[in-house]
Amino acid sequence: MNKLFKVADRQLKRLFISVSDKQGTPPGTMVYTGTQKTEPLRITVIDYDAETISEQQDVTTEACVALKETNTVSWINVTGLNDTEAVGRIGSEFGIHPLVLEDILHTTQRPKLEDLGDYLFLVVRMLFVEPDTNAIHSEQISFILTKHCLISFQEASGDVFDVIRDRLRKGHGRIRKMGADYLLYALMDAIVDNYFLVLEKTGEQIEGIEQSLMENPNSLLLNELYAQKRELLYIRKAIWPLREAIGGLERGESKLLTAKISAYLRDLYDHTIQVIDTVETFRDMLSGVQDLYLSSMGQKTNQVMQVLTVIATIFIPLTFVAGIYGMNFEHMPELGWKYSYPSVWVVMVLVAIGMLVYFRRNKWF
Amino acid sequence: MNKLFKVADRQLKRLFISVSDKQGTPPGTMVYTGTQKTEPLRITVIDYDAETISEQQDVTTEACVALKETNTVSWINVTGLNDTEAVGRIGSEFGIHPLVLEDILHTTQRPKLEDLGDYLFLVVRMLFVEPDTNAIHSEQISFILTKHCLISFQEASGDVFDVIRDRLRKGHGRIRKMGADYLLYALMDAIVDNYFLVLEKTGEQIEGIEQSLMENPNSLLLNELYAQKRELLYIRKAIWPLREAIGGLERGESKLLTAKISAYLRDLYDHTIQVIDTVETFRDMLSGVQDLYLSSMGQKTNQVMQVLTVIATIFIPLTFVAGIYGMNFEHMPELGWKYSYPSVWVVMVLVAIGMLVYFRRNKWF
Amino acid sequence: MNKLFKVADRQLKRLFISVSDKQGTPPGTMVYTGTQKTEPLRITVIDYDAETISEQQDVTTEACVALKETNTVSWINVTGLNDTEAVGRIGSEFGIHPLVLEDILHTTQRPKLEDLGDYLFLVVRMLFVEPDTNAIHSEQISFILTKHCLISFQEASGDVFDVIRDRLRKGHGRIRKMGADYLLYALMDAIVDNYFLVLEKTGEQIEGIEQSLMENPNSLLLNELYAQKRELLYIRKAIWPLREAIGGLERGESKLLTAKISAYLRDLYDHTIQVIDTVETFRDMLSGVQDLYLSSMGQKTNQVMQVLTVIATIFIPLTFVAGIYGMNFEHMPELGWKYSYPSVWVVMVLVAIGMLVYFRRNKWF
Amino acid sequence: MNKLFKVADRQLKRLFISVSDKQGTPPGTMVYTGTQKTEPLRITVIDYDAETISEQQDVTTEACVALKETNTVSWINVTGLNDTEAVGRIGSEFGIHPLVLEDILHTTQRPKLEDLGDYLFLVVRMLFVEPDTNAIHSEQISFILTKHCLISFQEASGDVFDVIRDRLRKGHGRIRKMGADYLLYALMDAIVDNYFLVLEKTGEQIEGIEQSLMENPNSLLLNELYAQKRELLYIRKAIWPLREAIGGLERGESKLLTAKISAYLRDLYDHTIQVIDTVETFRDMLSGVQDLYLSSMGQKTNQVMQVLTVIATIFIPLTFVAGIYGMNFEHMPELGWKYSYPSVWVVMVLVAIGMLVYFRRNKWF
Amino acid sequence: MNKLFKVADRQLKRLFISVSDKQGTPPGTMVYTGTQKTEPLRITVIDYDAETISEQQDVTTEACVALKETNTVSWINVTGLNDTEAVGRIGSEFGIHPLVLEDILHTTQRPKLEDLGDYLFLVVRMLFVEPDTNAIHSEQISFILTKHCLISFQEASGDVFDVIRDRLRKGHGRIRKMGADYLLYALMDAIVDNYFLVLEKTGEQIEGIEQSLMENPNSLLLNELYAQKRELLYIRKAIWPLREAIGGLERGESKLLTAKISAYLRDLYDHTIQVIDTVETFRDMLSGVQDLYLSSMGQKTNQVMQVLTVIATIFIPLTFVAGIYGMNFEHMPELGWKYSYPSVWVVMVLVAIGMLVYFRRNKWF
Repeated sequence: MNKLFKVADRQLKRLFISVSDKQGTPPGTMVYTGTQKTEPLRITVIDYDAETISEQQDVTTEACVALKETNTVSWINVTGLNDTEAVGRIGSEFGIHPLVLEDILHTTQRPKLEDLGDYLFLVVRMLFVEPDTNAIHSEQISFILTKHCLISFQEASGDVFDVIRDRLRKGHGRIRKMGADYLLYALMDAIVDNYFLVLEKTGEQIEGIEQSLMENPNSLLLNELYAQKRELLYIRKAIWPLREAIGGLERGESKLLTAKISAYLRDLYDHTIQVIDTVETFRDMLSGVQDLYLSSMGQKTNQVMQVLTVIATIFIPLTFVAGIYGMNFEHMPELGWKYSYPSVWVVMVLVAIGMLVYFRRNKWF
Repeated sequence: MNKLFKVADRQLKRLFISVSDKQGTPPGTMVYTGTQKTEPLRITVIDYDAETISEQQDVTTEACVALKETNTVSWINVTGLNDTEAVGRIGSEFGIHPLVLEDILHTTQRPKLEDLGDYLFLVVRMLFVEPDTNAIHSEQISFILTKHCLISFQEASGDVFDVIRDRLRKGHGRIRKMGADYLLYALMDAIVDNYFLVLEKTGEQIEGIEQSLMENPNSLLLNELYAQKRELLYIRKAIWPLREAIGGLERGESKLLTAKISAYLRDLYDHTIQVIDTVETFRDMLSGVQDLYLSSMGQKTNQVMQVLTVIATIFIPLTFVAGIYGMNFEHMPELGWKYSYPSVWVVMVLVAIGMLVYFRRNKWF
Repeated sequence: MNKLFKVADRQLKRLFISVSDKQGTPPGTMVYTGTQKTEPLRITVIDYDAETISEQQDVTTEACVALKETNTVSWINVTGLNDTEAVGRIGSEFGIHPLVLEDILHTTQRPKLEDLGDYLFLVVRMLFVEPDTNAIHSEQISFILTKHCLISFQEASGDVFDVIRDRLRKGHGRIRKMGADYLLYALMDAIVDNYFLVLEKTGEQIEGIEQSLMENPNSLLLNELYAQKRELLYIRKAIWPLREAIGGLERGESKLLTAKISAYLRDLYDHTIQVIDTVETFRDMLSGVQDLYLSSMGQKTNQVMQVLTVIATIFIPLTFVAGIYGMNFEHMPELGWKYSYPSVWVVMVLVAIGMLVYFRRNKWF
Repeated sequence: MNKLFKVADRQLKRLFISVSDKQGTPPGTMVYTGTQKTEPLRITVIDYDAETISEQQDVTTEACVALKETNTVSWINVTGLNDTEAVGRIGSEFGIHPLVLEDILHTTQRPKLEDLGDYLFLVVRMLFVEPDTNAIHSEQISFILTKHCLISFQEASGDVFDVIRDRLRKGHGRIRKMGADYLLYALMDAIVDNYFLVLEKTGEQIEGIEQSLMENPNSLLLNELYAQKRELLYIRKAIWPLREAIGGLERGESKLLTAKISAYLRDLYDHTIQVIDTVETFRDMLSGVQDLYLSSMGQKTNQVMQVLTVIATIFIPLTFVAGIYGMNFEHMPELGWKYSYPSVWVVMVLVAIGMLVYFRRNKWF
Repeated sequence: MNKLFKVADRQLKRLFISVSDKQGTPPGTMVYTGTQKTEPLRITVIDYDAETISEQQDVTTEACVALKETNTVSWINVTGLNDTEAVGRIGSEFGIHPLVLEDILHTTQRPKLEDLGDYLFLVVRMLFVEPDTNAIHSEQISFILTKHCLISFQEASGDVFDVIRDRLRKGHGRIRKMGADYLLYALMDAIVDNYFLVLEKTGEQIEGIEQSLMENPNSLLLNELYAQKRELLYIRKAIWPLREAIGGLERGESKLLTAKISAYLRDLYDHTIQVIDTVETFRDMLSGVQDLYLSSMGQKTNQVMQVLTVIATIFIPLTFVAGIYGMNFEHMPELGWKYSYPSVWVVMVLVAIGMLVYFRRNKWF
């Protein structure tokens, strides 16, 4: 089994692994179904307004609650969902519905947006290319947006938000002057931007396959093609529902989203559509490449077989002629004639040339 | 005929078997069209509120009627639909429309929801993996939801509701504090959870086929592929309409559904969508696997044929040369020369090497 | 040309035969375009209410008109549309629009429903399996529903309504107590029930093809597959638009449809959807079977070719060796050696075994 | 290049020929982009009411204008669009928008309906089978419907309206008693009726291909298949948008369409749907035929190859045996035995029979 | 790698090249992501009303601002987007939202329309055939429409608007009498007209491939086919969203669009639909051509293989016969007979003729 398939298999796992873990538990039961079972829960808080900004590592759940009341924007980032009890504490402090908490912990959610009145709940899938392994990493991120707070839940540390953190620290640009809804937008924008990077990488791989195909079609490419197809199936499954979710955010009449944010959300929506468009284009391209591959391979085989068959076909009648004069009949007058042997050679050469000319004229090789 | 096809055939039966049984009967006639013709009708009742719970086995239809008036939540579970008269009695006591009763007995219904004012009628298909045979079992379940009662009709005993019964008995969690509508939700949730289990099993089988394919593509895999495809066709037919039914439940303005239930129904709806998504992804994967299979097989055949043809093609000209000097002409000067024989060997080896090099350079084998 | 194609060809005719017959006639001209050109027009009347029922054969058009005014429900069944004048007389007595009459006579209509205020016009296609020939018979049936009358127009005698006639005569069940709209429903229900029978037969044939395919794939199956595909294309064309028509009936606000009928119409609508679902599932199954067939055939050919090629490939080098020692050179020292002949045999056997082992190890046969 | 392709190429031209002619002209510029560049402009007028009818040939544009005011229905039929100036004069007299005139002259329009208040503009594509060449002729027809006038613009003389002219002259039927809107309907009905004729011819050709395929599959059929496919692509492109246009006409609230016309328009709409249905069915049938063709050809090739390979495979080992005893070793004891020769024959016959039996049992030929 | 693929690869670049350039920048950051990195920014202004017209080259951004207030229509055409600062200055002077400016600079936008109250923002993709290289050139054009100004942003000089400039200069036609909205329409019309030209060229190439295919199917056509397919994929991606954008423009209730413009916009919308229709038809045609190609190639290979196999099959038994009489048994009575040799010839000729007749009768070659 080649390397590319390993990757694909792992992806299948990522799609379905949590299914049976929670079987039989009542709705709203908090069971973490992801793969990061050993990741400790850590809370990081960035609290800011236009003038001030403070960052805290390893905040306790109790400390988070205090942030609920302040007028500054608080970004509470929770990594590691294995400690379901701590997640539950945060949830109950912020008045989050048990089913929402369940969705946060079941990390195979379909991207979706839910407006629960006092807060918005948004689940998306973060895709990014891991720099070392060059593999695509996938992780569920959930956001809870209240009036002044944005709580984000990640399965593991390591995310695509460092650019946002930098921008917050440096304080230039719009981000420090606006509310928690803009922060949500900025984070979502960072996630969607990373989709483009993932797609760019995928695009390069498709181009690579294509190039290899033009130069030297071989059967290994088939597995790569198939792996890419599956990769796209997976990306597509993660991104398609996002369109609906962000569309809902844009059209949404939630009081948590200020009027100023709507232009940004439309922009985000446009980007999502563009991502989906690109995924579909890639799928079309891959099926084009597959057609090309199959035709090329068929072509190559046909050519080989034709040339070889032509060679065989030319020699078979000649061998027959040789066989004739290898017979041991006593009464074969030709055998005694003086010029029999050279004549046979002449005949055989003429037959061979005739056949070659005929085959060539019919473009048989 | 191999084992996998047997399974698929039985499924086709399950889809269409009831068609001709009821031919010619007037609408509303109660004829049981399922396969469990010998299953006796048994009624089990679980009657509970937040404080108390009572379970009764083998309740009579008359006893059920009394439950209609109590304020406790009553779950009346009817198994075995062969005794149509008894089903009719329950129906008329609870004021159920004859066409609804007919639908309950015709166990090849498309999943659907009907709001009939005083009660809701919901038909779904329960799928579960039978632990012994590892086969997928399929059965129609109908629910009648009235103000305080939930009546469920099953074809046979054995279902996916034991987790719910346990939860009711233990009395922790939400379930005992809420009404019959929550019970309906909990049962539906158990059914949909089992879809995930069925899909997980299907996913494993697809993975298995894929793995076998990578290691040793052979023609048996083709039948397995086809059986899986048909299996998915069947699951899809059972699940697709459910989306609409549960969507109707969620949006429904029935007075039988309390406001508190709507968050749960939305959650259930999300799960249904996720199930459908997964089925579609599996179908895409299967057709990818099929493409891969066909290409692999074609590949393999081509390789074999090429190598064999190359061997034949090398020896055919050599055999011709040997044939030449096997001729019995009297005047063949080469025959008498001293170094003819070794020279012929040298020529033949050179020709063979030349062809091999040429073929190899053109990547013909 | 095999038998199955004959059937398919006849179906094509049934789909398009009437096209050119009416070319150039003004709209509303009454020309019968069906195939039953010799069928005499016969009118049968069943007139009933809850207490009484009377049946009359060979009623005159004049006698029909009298029924218009009575309060009993009158089912006027017209068979044989060749006598366009008589059809026209009935039409004008009941105030039917000329275009509607034209549609009744053009027996290649798409199923449709039209609400013309005073009456409803419904065209459907009746499909049933002819018991003798086992062929699918197709015929257009048009219904005109007025307040107390239901007029049905059939191309030929012989229909699927005998169960309804029996039920009317016996007088039990709902049918005698309800109006002409229920009668229309009952007849439509009989038609849709027959679709299930037709599909059941089709399903059996598909299963048969499948079974044959598993046991002995051969090229005759291909034609059967194709014929089934075309059969389904035809059934689909006849049934798809029905969904819309019956949906229109169900939602319809015609004053001719009483409130009590709506539950029955919804049931009928559900059945229609189920029929369409099944047709689509069959189409999917057929294309699955076709894939399987093509793969199986390719498989079989490949196996044969491989084994044969392996045999050829083993003997070609051996024949070459034999050819070598068949050469007539004077100076071939091996020829004189004592153990040459057995040595050559040993070499040849070793080569053959070596090749067999190699081929087997590579799973080439 | 065979004949069928010529036709298809011409069609492509008909689809795209006008593209570059008008490049760079301002919107509303009147350039005729069709192929009938030499056709003179001729105006024919039929002016009628219930009592009187008058026909005029070669009417001047000035004379047309006078008809605008009369209460009789005037059908002004313009053939030959090359004289754009004259078309422009008619346009300005009747107050037609320049963009509408441009659309009339650009004879590659998509069928469409536009309600411009004072008049309706309808563009459709007339398809008819030319009786001599049996080829499908395609031409754009534009209609301008005002209160009492219907102006039709055709590229060339020769149309499908002779039946309408006859009906007008004979004066029976509805046509003379109704207004210009009914005339528009009657002409559209004639056009749609001709679609059926074209489809009937196409259906016959598909049947012909199918029949040929069953009797003798050969590669010429492939090109015919492809040509038919393209023909349908073209017909489809011409007819699909018509559905929308006629649907718009039917639903239209234009004051130019009287209430009495709506039943006729609905009938026309039904016919259009039926045409589209038939085109789609034909496409499905063609792709079925193509599948069948490819399978049949593959089948045939496989059979030939198998039989030939079986023959080769039987003789190759036999030839090897003969080769063995053709060797010239001095010490080959068998050569001297008395019954060697017949024994070898027996062995060879047994081997041949054994292989034949084995191959036959495995159904290899 | 052949030439056609080079083109296609470049296109892929054009689709995705900008992705990673802007990664990590805050929303609204102005980074030019196109390929024309060295193109200097140049502003050209055409300022006109019905009477006067003035053209200015190399206008400064400051001079543009003055035009904002005048009542004449000003077309400010900006080429070269590399100087993002200058673009930003124009933007802020005209009060354009930062996200809109970002979209102008990110030249891989999906075509879209945004109504921002004071101005309309329209992004489209201009496609045109470069006359020298005959390659399709693609460039993003953005329009900002205010009350009296139309600002267009192009990546590089060279566009399809020269016809519009000429029309403005000459002053005949509608264009000088109407407002900035009509100018936007005229420019859009020029762009859509060029789509037709691009499609005409594509159509010619498809016809060319088709013609080559009919005359001499060979494997190079496969790559051309694939390149065309990808070209269409690209064109489709650029044009599809335009439908929505122009549809939005037509339906739009913006106060910037006068009533008189709506007929023109509908016309433009019709053209867009026609373009999309044509792209879809081309895609269908290409897949038809591909089917034809694959079948033709398969056909050709099969023919070659069959003829060659027939030749081999005829000679193999004959060679066997010759081998028989080449055996060196001492006791082979036939060897001594007088007419053995001619008899063997007669037998061999008869066998050969018999096989030929049999093969021919079965149409095996």
